[in-house]
Amino acid sequence: MNAEIIAIGSEMLTHTRVDTNSLFLTEKLNGLGIEVVAKHVIGDDRARLTEAIRRALKDSRFLLISGGLGPTEDDLTRDAVAAALGREQIFNEEICAGIEQRFIAMNRKMPEINKRQAMVIEGARILSNDRGTAPGQWIEDGENIVMLLPGPPHEMKSMFTRECLPALAAIVPPSAIRTQIYRISGMSESDLDATIAPIYKPYENPVTTVLAHNGDLQVHLRARCATEEEAAALLAEVGGRIEEALGDRIYSKTEDPLETVVGQRLRERGETLAVAESATGGGLAERITSIPGSSDYFLGGFITYAMALKIKLLGVPEEILDEFGAVSEETAKAMAEGTRARLGSTYALAITGNAGPGTDGPQAPAGMMFVALASPDGTVVMHRQWPSDRARVRAFAGQMALDMLLKKLRGIVSHRIISS
Amino acid sequence: MNAEIIAIGSEMLTHTRVDTNSLFLTEKLNGLGIEVVAKHVIGDDRARLTEAIRRALKDSRFLLISGGLGPTEDDLTRDAVAAALGREQIFNEEICAGIEQRFIAMNRKMPEINKRQAMVIEGARILSNDRGTAPGQWIEDGENIVMLLPGPPHEMKSMFTRECLPALAAIVPPSAIRTQIYRISGMSESDLDATIAPIYKPYENPVTTVLAHNGDLQVHLRARCATEEEAAALLAEVGGRIEEALGDRIYSKTEDPLETVVGQRLRERGETLAVAESATGGGLAERITSIPGSSDYFLGGFITYAMALKIKLLGVPEEILDEFGAVSEETAKAMAEGTRARLGSTYALAITGNAGPGTDGPQAPAGMMFVALASPDGTVVMHRQWPSDRARVRAFAGQMALDMLLKKLRGIVSHRIISS
Repeated sequence: MNAEIIAIGSEMLTHTRVDTNSLFLTEKLNGLGIEVVAKHVIGDDRARLTEAIRRALKDSRFLLISGGLGPTEDDLTRDAVAAALGREQIFNEEICAGIEQRFIAMNRKMPEINKRQAMVIEGARILSNDRGTAPGQWIEDGENIVMLLPGPPHEMKSMFTRECLPALAAIVPPSAIRTQIYRISGMSESDLDATIAPIYKPYENPVTTVLAHNGDLQVHLRARCATEEEAAALLAEVGGRIEEALGDRIYSKTEDPLETVVGQRLRERGETLAVAESATGGGLAERITSIPGSSDYFLGGFITYAMALKIKLLGVPEEILDEFGAVSEETAKAMAEGTRARLGSTYALAITGNAGPGTDGPQAPAGMMFVALASPDGTVVMHRQWPSDRARVRAFAGQMALDMLLKKLRGIVSHRIISS
Repeated sequence: MNAEIIAIGSEMLTHTRVDTNSLFLTEKLNGLGIEVVAKHVIGDDRARLTEAIRRALKDSRFLLISGGLGPTEDDLTRDAVAAALGREQIFNEEICAGIEQRFIAMNRKMPEINKRQAMVIEGARILSNDRGTAPGQWIEDGENIVMLLPGPPHEMKSMFTRECLPALAAIVPPSAIRTQIYRISGMSESDLDATIAPIYKPYENPVTTVLAHNGDLQVHLRARCATEEEAAALLAEVGGRIEEALGDRIYSKTEDPLETVVGQRLRERGETLAVAESATGGGLAERITSIPGSSDYFLGGFITYAMALKIKLLGVPEEILDEFGAVSEETAKAMAEGTRARLGSTYALAITGNAGPGTDGPQAPAGMMFVALASPDGTVVMHRQWPSDRARVRAFAGQMALDMLLKKLRGIVSHRIISS
């Protein structure tokens, strides 16, 4: 039950365009239990298109083609599919009259070239287009099914939903699809994979995907079975073992990111948070406040980029800055405690470091970041040195800060307490 | 001179991911005069991958593959390319030692599976990865050239730019390609296009591209000619007319974004900036500090998400908040002036508003944002109501703030002065 998707058109091969039609189609196909195994974008070249269509039909039962159904010479989809299947095209009077009607409704005369849109591949079923002139086509060829869809997303989506989805649902055996998501923080992608690969590898079903983004990890399990019960049981089996292996490193079993989960906990407890940011320059607060309603628990804070502001706004003692430098455990601690004291929040997170690219002396190499969490029962500080670029170092530090706070809120002790 | 691009990885076939690496690669290849004729996304399936690679090499001289170079069993790129070319893979001690070093630098032990990343296809030239563990490979096979690049965009871009671009430039016949970039702020994409389309439309060369991202606009002109002189003359002709039409709405003729241009001006003048952010929650400061060296002119500031902090930290009079509300011209003005007075900066930018999605009463509908700029000769406030989503409203407000400051620094008067 495999599908391939081809987007056709040289304009789709410029450096500013991505094929988003395939995302919609993938979601709908996956929902029916059809797997998308490859996607292609091919320019307006007859031979290359014909060859790509032929090859896809050898590999995959379903082929969805979007674009190239317009009236111009560049629009080669009909010709290429006809050539690949070895079929003729037949002029359809009724379609032509319909297109003509659309032009009349706009007070225009149909240009002669639009007649090309009334050419139908032998044996095809017409797919009506309620948003534009180009009709689609549904062609069965042995086991294969080819769908020709228009390129403009609103035309394509309407046509696929009305015409193709019900027809596909009638063909594919009914199957139940269930997904389980785990979101994980505080470990590396390779450590995560080393931990769970022995669990998920033996299974082709559920399909397991590991995603990583700036220190935030996700594991997606997708089970496809004959019944809901079987799918649920399969997810419980594999997911249960993954949960056991990862323990409290899983922070969410939904799509909710770390900032949402932290926010929910704070709101439940009626507690508040404030921040002081140096090296991240506001990025942590920006992330926390990206969640609507974050004003319920987030008070605000300080961006103390200049050394003098750490003293003036946060009350970091000058001696600490002199003795240990701005990039230090001691400064991070004083920043967090100063913020908490001044703003009266339950918790305060502080970040200081050198995001790079240049070094700031032996104590502050590029990528060295300190994160402090001040709370009613003391302050914890963690530090890490990341090797990558400025934007990623800053994102990683924000992730570490939220991870520290969530662990605190969940009562997980994994940090060295340096003060209480 | 054709190229194809393959993105590898089943995670790239989910309904939430698009291959953006190919956009960067397309732009760079086009710049060399290499045409991208097809792009593919293929899942982690050894046979399908091998077949796709074989077919692409028959059709196109250059094949760029991104992804699938990681350490796990899923990472099949090396194996598939070796199979397609009929070559062996050889374990490379030196690469392995390098990967080990990266782990040591992070105080970690290299997992055993990472050794897979040290497997090199016979005859390949290694492409160094300065952002991650996976090295790339450059393989020549008759006329064909295959490049194996890592999937993470920041790793791929650095590797391609350092290692592949110069090597490709040495291979393709020199044609003189010149690019002119204009960055524009403070107008809408459709106004921009209406203004300049009559100028660039008649020309197939240079190729003109208009890009829009959260209120920041770019116009790219790319001229390809036999000689440098011809290309320069062509750009001067078309670019000159665009410059005339846009005037001071062009803020940069390089790739430098608004935050860089603002920073350069501040540094030249020996002036400083501070911020107070409510609705943007730190996003403006995050953007300003994304520029290395921004500590030369950026002091820091306040995130006053809670109403009480606007009073406590910025000295916004309670009567102003009571009378006009937090989302008002008066509050924005008081925030900017309070910040400037307290931190002693030359300029202060303040943002207050309702980023949405919910409304906060008739005076603060979703998307209503106020931005104030306090400077030695007074304070200006602008407001806009954007119709789009929370993340975009916040980004637009930050863009407006930087645009206001740059106009001030350039002596362009376009705001209403509400106080001086």
